[in-house]
Amino acid sequence: MTSKPPTARIRKSPEQVRSAVHQAVVDLLSDPGGAELTIPAIAQRAGVNHTSVYRRWGSREALLADVVTTRLERDWPLKDTGSLRGDLTAWVEAGVASIRTPEGRLLVRAVALSMPGTAEAQGERTQQFQRRIRAIERIRERAAARGEDAPPLEEILDQLIAPLYLRAIFGIDPPASGYPELLVDRLLGTPGGPSAPTVGRS
Amino acid sequence: MTSKPPTARIRKSPEQVRSAVHQAVVDLLSDPGGAELTIPAIAQRAGVNHTSVYRRWGSREALLADVVTTRLERDWPLKDTGSLRGDLTAWVEAGVASIRTPEGRLLVRAVALSMPGTAEAQGERTQQFQRRIRAIERIRERAAARGEDAPPLEEILDQLIAPLYLRAIFGIDPPASGYPELLVDRLLGTPGGPSAPTVGRS
Repeated sequence: MTSKPPTARIRKSPEQVRSAVHQAVVDLLSDPGGAELTIPAIAQRAGVNHTSVYRRWGSREALLADVVTTRLERDWPLKDTGSLRGDLTAWVEAGVASIRTPEGRLLVRAVALSMPGTAEAQGERTQQFQRRIRAIERIRERAAARGEDAPPLEEILDQLIAPLYLRAIFGIDPPASGYPELLVDRLLGTPGGPSAPTVGRS
Repeated sequence: MTSKPPTARIRKSPEQVRSAVHQAVVDLLSDPGGAELTIPAIAQRAGVNHTSVYRRWGSREALLADVVTTRLERDWPLKDTGSLRGDLTAWVEAGVASIRTPEGRLLVRAVALSMPGTAEAQGERTQQFQRRIRAIERIRERAAARGEDAPPLEEILDQLIAPLYLRAIFGIDPPASGYPELLVDRLLGTPGGPSAPTVGRS
């Protein structure tokens, strides 16, 4: 009687390796036992050789960053609603929906985990940050193309992105309703009302 | 010729152990080589037995949380300026000064690292979060005692704490001047001007 070969011995295509490794990261992040998130542990769970993981991603931080970027881009899609206010509200709505799920919270927390901690790695942190804000940059570009005056990136960072990240990190649920609209009103001012306080905006 | 005994063999008082272990965590967090932050590595650096570290703190997350709380309370002192606006501005000023230093950024990043990742650990996350916001609670209580109407905690979370955390995590410098005042104006409304958009505030 022959048994199925163990998963680890099936030769996987590069795309299968990527998918298995990504899933293993998400599984280990979600592990109720608080499994250690090391490359050997990830490789074992994915049924691939840990040398392939090192070869492909180089470091745990780079792997986490790849998983996070891929998943968050899938889960926080970028809608074109025809206006800056609509685009930002839709983006925050997707973010709020995502951080209401355990996987979404884990992914945002993994962004922080994937940040290289040393002063020397500031270039890498900036690069990862720029990948995380690509969606916001596109929303600002579309606004400019429509002739709308979009707030500076740093204001969007402080007022829309920061609250979602902090809530995901600490597991603090956003208010049950109206939260995306509230954050966008704080940023852009209430529709028809006075603008919010700002610096450096023309 | 006799040589000095190695550091590891000097018997330390509990307070010396705590201080050496805390310093070892900060040193390892700052290590340009990106040293692994494990309990054995921390214990070795501190010159103490790793079993003492496990006995005293229980887990790496609890140790990180202790280091972070101790250092941030030291670095972000709580001034009584006589008004809610003044107290909040002073608190943000201390936070901004702290995240302009490499150690301050590392400590804030360590808060995120020290968060237990599992859904089951929500109680522990909430507890750590409550330790982190104790200063804000005290500022709100003082405002209430003065008869001032302080914003709900969640607004302070979104508008004052979240931007500092996100900037520390990604290493994005706050604007060079006027930043604490700007964040507080966004939260409380410009002095003498209209209130900022809000929900659930009476």
